[in-house]
Amino acid sequence: MLVWRINSRERSYTTKDSPSTWERLGGRGLVARILLDEVKPDCDPLGKYNKLIIAPGLLVGHKVSSCDRISFGGKSPLTGGAKEANSGGTTGLSLAHLGIKALVLEDQPTDDKWIVLHISKNGVQFEPADDLIGLGVYRSTEILLDRYGKNVSLVLIGPAGEREYLASGIVNLDKDRVPSRIAARGGLGALMGSKKVKAIVIDAGRGENPPIRDIEKFKNAQKIYNQALKDHPQTKIYHDYGTNAMPGMSDGFGGMPTRNFSAGHFEGLEKIRGETMREIILERDGEGKPSHACMPGCIIQCSNVYPDKNGKTIVSPLEYETVGLLGPNLGIDDLDIIAQLNWEVNDLGLDSIEIGAALGVAAEAGLMKFGDGERALELVHEIRQNTLLGRVLGNGAVITGKILGVKRVPAVKGQAMSAYDPRAIKGTGVTYATSPQGADHTAGLTIRAKVDHLDPSIQANISRTAQINMAGYDTLGACIFAGNGFASAPQAIKELIEARYGWEVSENILQELGKETIWLEKEFNRRAGFTSAHDRIPEWMTKEPLPPNQSIFDVPESDLDHIFDDLDKNG
Amino acid sequence: MLVWRINSRERSYTTKDSPSTWERLGGRGLVARILLDEVKPDCDPLGKYNKLIIAPGLLVGHKVSSCDRISFGGKSPLTGGAKEANSGGTTGLSLAHLGIKALVLEDQPTDDKWIVLHISKNGVQFEPADDLIGLGVYRSTEILLDRYGKNVSLVLIGPAGEREYLASGIVNLDKDRVPSRIAARGGLGALMGSKKVKAIVIDAGRGENPPIRDIEKFKNAQKIYNQALKDHPQTKIYHDYGTNAMPGMSDGFGGMPTRNFSAGHFEGLEKIRGETMREIILERDGEGKPSHACMPGCIIQCSNVYPDKNGKTIVSPLEYETVGLLGPNLGIDDLDIIAQLNWEVNDLGLDSIEIGAALGVAAEAGLMKFGDGERALELVHEIRQNTLLGRVLGNGAVITGKILGVKRVPAVKGQAMSAYDPRAIKGTGVTYATSPQGADHTAGLTIRAKVDHLDPSIQANISRTAQINMAGYDTLGACIFAGNGFASAPQAIKELIEARYGWEVSENILQELGKETIWLEKEFNRRAGFTSAHDRIPEWMTKEPLPPNQSIFDVPESDLDHIFDDLDKNG
Repeated sequence: MLVWRINSRERSYTTKDSPSTWERLGGRGLVARILLDEVKPDCDPLGKYNKLIIAPGLLVGHKVSSCDRISFGGKSPLTGGAKEANSGGTTGLSLAHLGIKALVLEDQPTDDKWIVLHISKNGVQFEPADDLIGLGVYRSTEILLDRYGKNVSLVLIGPAGEREYLASGIVNLDKDRVPSRIAARGGLGALMGSKKVKAIVIDAGRGENPPIRDIEKFKNAQKIYNQALKDHPQTKIYHDYGTNAMPGMSDGFGGMPTRNFSAGHFEGLEKIRGETMREIILERDGEGKPSHACMPGCIIQCSNVYPDKNGKTIVSPLEYETVGLLGPNLGIDDLDIIAQLNWEVNDLGLDSIEIGAALGVAAEAGLMKFGDGERALELVHEIRQNTLLGRVLGNGAVITGKILGVKRVPAVKGQAMSAYDPRAIKGTGVTYATSPQGADHTAGLTIRAKVDHLDPSIQANISRTAQINMAGYDTLGACIFAGNGFASAPQAIKELIEARYGWEVSENILQELGKETIWLEKEFNRRAGFTSAHDRIPEWMTKEPLPPNQSIFDVPESDLDHIFDDLDKNG
Repeated sequence: MLVWRINSRERSYTTKDSPSTWERLGGRGLVARILLDEVKPDCDPLGKYNKLIIAPGLLVGHKVSSCDRISFGGKSPLTGGAKEANSGGTTGLSLAHLGIKALVLEDQPTDDKWIVLHISKNGVQFEPADDLIGLGVYRSTEILLDRYGKNVSLVLIGPAGEREYLASGIVNLDKDRVPSRIAARGGLGALMGSKKVKAIVIDAGRGENPPIRDIEKFKNAQKIYNQALKDHPQTKIYHDYGTNAMPGMSDGFGGMPTRNFSAGHFEGLEKIRGETMREIILERDGEGKPSHACMPGCIIQCSNVYPDKNGKTIVSPLEYETVGLLGPNLGIDDLDIIAQLNWEVNDLGLDSIEIGAALGVAAEAGLMKFGDGERALELVHEIRQNTLLGRVLGNGAVITGKILGVKRVPAVKGQAMSAYDPRAIKGTGVTYATSPQGADHTAGLTIRAKVDHLDPSIQANISRTAQINMAGYDTLGACIFAGNGFASAPQAIKELIEARYGWEVSENILQELGKETIWLEKEFNRRAGFTSAHDRIPEWMTKEPLPPNQSIFDVPESDLDHIFDDLDKNG
């Protein structure tokens, strides 16, 4: 597996073996290692010294269910710290099939010429992108697939990334070539835009799976893992309802972000929960699909296709975080409008969580009435038109709050919270506060732990375990739901890695990778100027009780300050 | 001397002796001490836990020339760190005459009712301010002087502070009751606004000078200092030309901020320099005054009154920093327009440096043509109207750059640079980078040092000396130009303090106070989450050569990192 480096200013590239210290890392862990080794921690995230790092996880390349995720990373334009955002779809597979361990996009053009990078076994081509600039993600995808064939993978940005909005993400195709898998968080679309790269076309041709040292052992481990995953009760739930199985649980704990995080229970819950969504999809039929795989070989198939009344696709997929932030957080209880908002946000190449949070702040400032979906669409249209208001919203919730004078902004390290209020699900609050990534549920969601989520005294350990495991899965390239399988068959992780690479690893390899990754990220952040003073939930959430529990975020600061004290460079 | 604490939520107050550790501090040093002792470093600067601290310097109260300055401070809404901004005028004298060592404004109202605080020997009155809300600084002053009599001092905010704009300052009256002395930097107007205090009226009545332990010794020291100040050649220069004596020097070194810091020489220099300004003032006559004292007893009189063609005052005073940022930085070479812009900015209660920098960024984004003064006035009008664009600009240069997508933003720790480009006057660049205050020339200007300002290897020590001295003067309540007198008669500082308080202090008392103050501020910043990664000039200034010298900012980072290594809590 080689490291491909592309210099965006010189329009040149190199391919080289990776240093030995990078070898046993992939995905999020490798992103963190490269960041620490090569990126000046105090650099301008949108300047020439930052790098966009794209790395498949360690297990990627073999269609092991839910284990082909691709990581994107760099110094975050939104948080200023270490950033990794990963996505499903086909990008990870295609890069692995070309034998690429990491793609590192470096430097910065001094002119305004946009390019498409074409990557294949013949190397890198730099092609003009002028005709794509300003186009949305969906139309850009059509043009690129027409131009480069239906079998390529695509990595692309929308107008948001071109304009370097801090809420912009990086979009990938799912297995049906829909540009729906977004490495959304932390403004990485702006980082890609700052390199003047509109899209990366990856043509793996008949690319081969990466070599497996011990096929027998690999297949055996895969079988055990598959069975464990199939047998897990949540696999069926996520298959049927997708991530939108969550509203009942979130709302039940009083943690559904409602009207800009001013309440934890949404009165319109029944209209937006996954059970209702499934009924609507089945009833409308047509192009709708209640279950759908984003990656080839996925057993869970938590994705979906949400159709309109005529059975035509509005958006695919409709996921819980988006539903939460663009629905209850805006007081909107209409899945059709939420789906339209989602399509618009996707087409612009934006993070639906960050934009939902920004719109919630805007609603609190009086720019829309909570519940007014048409007005929400107008506000998203402002973003599309690149108006001043659109630029404010497109730069995320924190800036929107500063400009509009709203203090109730749900964010940590500049990044908006996802659809779990930390006053009701306090372990996830600990994750928001202490993750090197900024507020992000995927860094360590605790909602399924069978504990009292309101008890502040027990949350640090729960979050810590979740964060370490998730950093491990993100390094493997495994989806959060793959964890349900691996949790029942932990030995399978060790065996898949050993069989794939011929290494010997410990039974705790998941946690070892997770700890190493978090240490690397925290060390980068330390050098970038982060201290424990940044590991805080916003002050207003420590004072303002959240109905219906009337709870505040009251996990002791000392618990936050010492959660990762024992990590060192050996993980 | 007592500490008066006012609780803005309860509308109550207390007066108490100051703790012994506060006794030998005043002004900036006392602000820093109180911040560290009492303000949670990671608090929301606009929330209930921040405090607005108002403290006269140690020498204030006796009309010693240029030594009656008043310090304002708190956790900065703009930088997030320790903040002190001081001003001339009569506020310091009035507080000292009431025996007030520090006024500490605490907590935060939970309703939206604005108040005027009336402070006299009878205590504190809380009076409604509803009729003043939305009014500019000049009109508010008229009403307040009508209501409370001509002999009060005033501390007030404009619409900018009411709206919690991050570029808002706190305004004080000069000795002629003109609201022209602004503690401008760091967004302290927003902090005052967050307490819902529109104005503080200080009625010292026939308040007495604070006691002097040894009058003979005091008078003698004062005489020596006065003579030294009078004899200093710069006293005459500042008397004749005000601070606007600087353009020739700044421009001569190639450090005049021109068109958003894209050049260091301004072709319109002759039209805006102090010599020209003086001629215009003398020629137009009427209300104009080329020399004017902001504080009673000042020998230097660097202030002025700038009249229009009919001899009517446009603004008082017109100072170099304002001329630089609202003039050359916007490509404007017309003092009349600069004076009008200055009046508008003052009336809104804004920092003219921060707004000039924000307008420069806006011009680079295409919102105005450089040189178009009418358009600059329109943009300031947007701020007055509280439009979305106005809110962007009113929150300062960094946010303006983020929203408008401009990377050439001249700021450190979120605060805009003043009118000395750090690529041409590199010692001042070291001050910008390493001052706990963020970019601020008053924290340690190096332009008068007789050194090669382009040589990166020698600047750290020059800046360090200047920063320590300035922190000392700011703690005494002495103006930057008082330093010219004290530099020739350093013994006078020791003797004035000893005579005033009956203490024994060392000959290095100025530096001791300065070091202690900087240590306190840096310690607060450390706890608030600042590290050496924040002590940096923006990356683009380290890459983009500044004409005419074609210089970049290249002082070694290690020089920046270790400049205050030896300071400890003993100063």
